[in-house]
Amino acid sequence: MAIQHPYLLFLGDAPDQLAAKTAQGVAHWRPEWCVGQLRLDGCKADLGLTDMTLEEGKAAGARTLIIGVANRGGVFSEKWISLLEQALLLGYDLAAGLHNRLVDVPVLKAAAAQHGRQLFDVRHPTREFEVANGKKRPGKRLLAVGTDCSVGKMYTTLALEKEMKGRGMKADFRATGQTGILIAGSGVSIDAVVADFISGAVEYLAPANDADHWDLVEGQGSLFHASFAGVSMGLLHGAQADALVLCHEPTRAHMRGLPEYKLPDLDACMAANLAAARLTNPEARFVGIAVNTSQMDKAKIEGYLAGLSDQFGLPAVDPFATGVAPIVDALA
Amino acid sequence: MAIQHPYLLFLGDAPDQLAAKTAQGVAHWRPEWCVGQLRLDGCKADLGLTDMTLEEGKAAGARTLIIGVANRGGVFSEKWISLLEQALLLGYDLAAGLHNRLVDVPVLKAAAAQHGRQLFDVRHPTREFEVANGKKRPGKRLLAVGTDCSVGKMYTTLALEKEMKGRGMKADFRATGQTGILIAGSGVSIDAVVADFISGAVEYLAPANDADHWDLVEGQGSLFHASFAGVSMGLLHGAQADALVLCHEPTRAHMRGLPEYKLPDLDACMAANLAAARLTNPEARFVGIAVNTSQMDKAKIEGYLAGLSDQFGLPAVDPFATGVAPIVDALA
Repeated sequence: MAIQHPYLLFLGDAPDQLAAKTAQGVAHWRPEWCVGQLRLDGCKADLGLTDMTLEEGKAAGARTLIIGVANRGGVFSEKWISLLEQALLLGYDLAAGLHNRLVDVPVLKAAAAQHGRQLFDVRHPTREFEVANGKKRPGKRLLAVGTDCSVGKMYTTLALEKEMKGRGMKADFRATGQTGILIAGSGVSIDAVVADFISGAVEYLAPANDADHWDLVEGQGSLFHASFAGVSMGLLHGAQADALVLCHEPTRAHMRGLPEYKLPDLDACMAANLAAARLTNPEARFVGIAVNTSQMDKAKIEGYLAGLSDQFGLPAVDPFATGVAPIVDALA
Repeated sequence: MAIQHPYLLFLGDAPDQLAAKTAQGVAHWRPEWCVGQLRLDGCKADLGLTDMTLEEGKAAGARTLIIGVANRGGVFSEKWISLLEQALLLGYDLAAGLHNRLVDVPVLKAAAAQHGRQLFDVRHPTREFEVANGKKRPGKRLLAVGTDCSVGKMYTTLALEKEMKGRGMKADFRATGQTGILIAGSGVSIDAVVADFISGAVEYLAPANDADHWDLVEGQGSLFHASFAGVSMGLLHGAQADALVLCHEPTRAHMRGLPEYKLPDLDACMAANLAAARLTNPEARFVGIAVNTSQMDKAKIEGYLAGLSDQFGLPAVDPFATGVAPIVDALA
């Protein structure tokens, strides 16, 4: 799966900015790939990009129309479909991160075949994977792990990629979720892989590489999330991580979606991740803590990060507010 | 998925006894469900059951033909297919534990539809599951965990079911693999579930029950198996186990399929499983150790089991050689 850029970002009739957060992630991390946005009547989201028609996007060089919006009710609306069909006719590939699939819409499947275009349903792996072999492979790997779901693992690894590339280091973000895949142009939606092949899919995603190359593997879930820990465990083993970064959101009252479950202590969470990671890489170590401080009392952030740094002897940063340079310093 | 018994066991042209081990497991654990065996010319396996034709099996009451044999090259041979089609015509359902699917053979799919029969591909889940909710549910659950794959987890849980039912306790084996599903008549092939739903599938498989009822959940893999630990982790969380039994094979030189990986120490393995299990059930505890001693020096077995029992303060048994009564004593 390799999605061709540049992109035109389709926002549909998004009812609010949040509904377009996938497109927003793409525009934020890959501005050089995004020629513009395409909005329908009533769209309440705006990425600040130039509004374009399909024809204008094509003239600006776009090769793929990214459906980067959460649609209402989980189905493609009729007005979307005629526009998407028109995009295929004009020579766009389509890429969507939705639960339902482009390939399951007969008119789109037929139009793609007729015009020789590709449909990318990035939530749904289209290839089969091998069972993990656990063999150590060359190259360095960093994995973001979390106290919970949705605590900034994708943001952290993308920020690390940007910082490392800015320093001339060899580094690639490796996407394991739908937004990450649209940002990277490739990847594996790891929670949609058949259970037996979780670790094998990660071995495929982050293969052997130069000795001084870093794969920055987007984490998923948490070893302490009662719904998804199997995914997190398979990711840890498949990544054979040399370096781990713990991601955390300190104001969360309970595990996402699980009101009965408190967040783990950071030290317990780090110990469990380290123990699991060392099965496939005995050299695994934590190199930093990345905190999403957006919901915190502003006056307390600096002290909180300093306290974490003292407690664990690691750089503790907010990737969004203060960047990840201290973590890259620790890696280098 | 509820497979109707009695069964007629199809052994095909099995090249040796090992190729029929799935059928052998069914015959061993559910002799009262098995009216006979059906063997083709050249079959080298024999379960000691009465040889029957399809017609004779039907006359003896069989409702399902169990394809309990590993086929050559992973495809159904032509001579199998005509026989399987004939079975559907005669009113049998078909159940197979193979990688390839009965439903993917057009002639069988058509014949099943025509005659109103069912095709069970027990390796392949046919329903969708919810994401696990992690909510404590009534009833007791025991999970077999292992130092490795293929160390006797299915055998142990089936032996526990037999012992507990023999004492009049409420107990049900819950199958998570293909042989177990054919033995139980239902279950979920947990390693074939989409990764996000591992724990949710186990919550479905072992639902709320009477307070004094035990679900005996077949384990899979090992937290220390670099290929499959994600499955094992999801199983632990979904089972919400009150009781764990550690299964082990002491003579194994390395983890199954992974020559680079040694088996874990038993105490490390127990600690890791207990820590993970306690996320969803803080009362989880080990109640016994089940050792497959078949490859050990006979003179050393008794001392080895006694040593384990002393070291861990738990009953240590060989379920095959000496039974699981001491573990049930510890449960009761």
